[in-house]
Amino acid sequence: MFHYIDSPQNPQFKSWSGLLESRGIRKQGQFLLAGLKTVPEALTRWPLHFTRILIRHPEWITDWPLPEHIQPVVLAGPLFRELDVSGTDYPILVGTLPPIAQADLSAPPKGLELVCALGDPANLGALLRSAAAFGASKVILLEEAAHPFHPKCLRAASNAVFTLDIVRGGRWAALDQAEGPLLALDAGGDDLATFPWPEDARLILGEEGQGVPPQVPAQRLTIGNTGNVESLNATVAASIALFTYYAGGQ
Amino acid sequence: MFHYIDSPQNPQFKSWSGLLESRGIRKQGQFLLAGLKTVPEALTRWPLHFTRILIRHPEWITDWPLPEHIQPVVLAGPLFRELDVSGTDYPILVGTLPPIAQADLSAPPKGLELVCALGDPANLGALLRSAAAFGASKVILLEEAAHPFHPKCLRAASNAVFTLDIVRGGRWAALDQAEGPLLALDAGGDDLATFPWPEDARLILGEEGQGVPPQVPAQRLTIGNTGNVESLNATVAASIALFTYYAGGQ
Repeated sequence: MFHYIDSPQNPQFKSWSGLLESRGIRKQGQFLLAGLKTVPEALTRWPLHFTRILIRHPEWITDWPLPEHIQPVVLAGPLFRELDVSGTDYPILVGTLPPIAQADLSAPPKGLELVCALGDPANLGALLRSAAAFGASKVILLEEAAHPFHPKCLRAASNAVFTLDIVRGGRWAALDQAEGPLLALDAGGDDLATFPWPEDARLILGEEGQGVPPQVPAQRLTIGNTGNVESLNATVAASIALFTYYAGGQ
Repeated sequence: MFHYIDSPQNPQFKSWSGLLESRGIRKQGQFLLAGLKTVPEALTRWPLHFTRILIRHPEWITDWPLPEHIQPVVLAGPLFRELDVSGTDYPILVGTLPPIAQADLSAPPKGLELVCALGDPANLGALLRSAAAFGASKVILLEEAAHPFHPKCLRAASNAVFTLDIVRGGRWAALDQAEGPLLALDAGGDDLATFPWPEDARLILGEEGQGVPPQVPAQRLTIGNTGNVESLNATVAASIALFTYYAGGQ
């Protein structure tokens, strides 16, 4: 009844272990989802994304209402632990990567669209979680950005990837032709706390510790603070901006 | 001129490797600070906290204006890498743990005091960074909280530990006797976006994924959101609350 894999040379296992890195995810068009809260939620709300459920023992899913099309696979302990990078000791889903379209930046924004270059997958995941919580209509990932289906991103995103419209945005230079209003979170700009948000806008977020390149043609917004630390955490800063947009629209 | 250590059995090296965990930090009353931005800043602004600088090659600090009381120690490659958990490949400071006093919760708060139980050191560090940025007057750590001088906390805190007043708060039950106003970030409370912050208050933050225990006698504040994700990241939520306090007082 259960498919069982105990060899690290097994081709299926080898392909799954490739999904721990962005390159393997792109190459194979698959991803791994782990997490005590995210896995049951994803199975219930978005079952068609998934094809396999990886477990250590058949008992792990005895009582689970598993859709027919999702095949359980039992992995030997060391194999399972290799894929369970967060140490959840809980079933892991294998999903099919959805197509990620190219953004049309020449069209005007509808709602709040995030343009983002966060290179750390955990930071990107936390940002996606805030983007879903505060109603961003689209997330446009620049080339520098981490892969949104990287395991560390998925872990931090709390299933936000399944509700967000995520597209590719190309290089920084692509923003020269982008339709506005363009806003950028950066030092030396207008005070975010009193900024009257337009309903439609593109909010640009730079790489961690880098900010937005000076040539990007956007109005700068700044989060006032004491100056007691050199800067805010990039995800925290972006989340605060999303919060003020959402709260202002209520 | 330089003290050199190449044996993993060296007692000084062994004591420093103990500083990678909270237990060793408490026991030895020392901590390790790493980071390309944090180390030079800490040496310039708070040199008296530190006693040693750990390096791999004397050339690393040839041009550094090193205070007399800070002794350079050259570590062999494998030893250095064991202490350089973030992989900075950059000098690491050994500091003396400052005394951490006990909070007096029966006295009324002055300014915004955070009461916090975040158990993950990286999350706590990011929170401390926001607390310093938005002018929290005090951070009161409950028993569940991570150690503020854990390397992962220091890495995320961006030197906020050196400007904040950090004290110990004991158990959750200690809050029964605490002077208010007591506020707690939790589901089902008043809307944070329109909340008129008092100048003096204690803001209570629960453990990740747990929230604040229901018996804690505090007014609940909630961050309005779409409901598209199960919850906000704990540090993000706390940082948004700190931002609204700071922005409201400007």
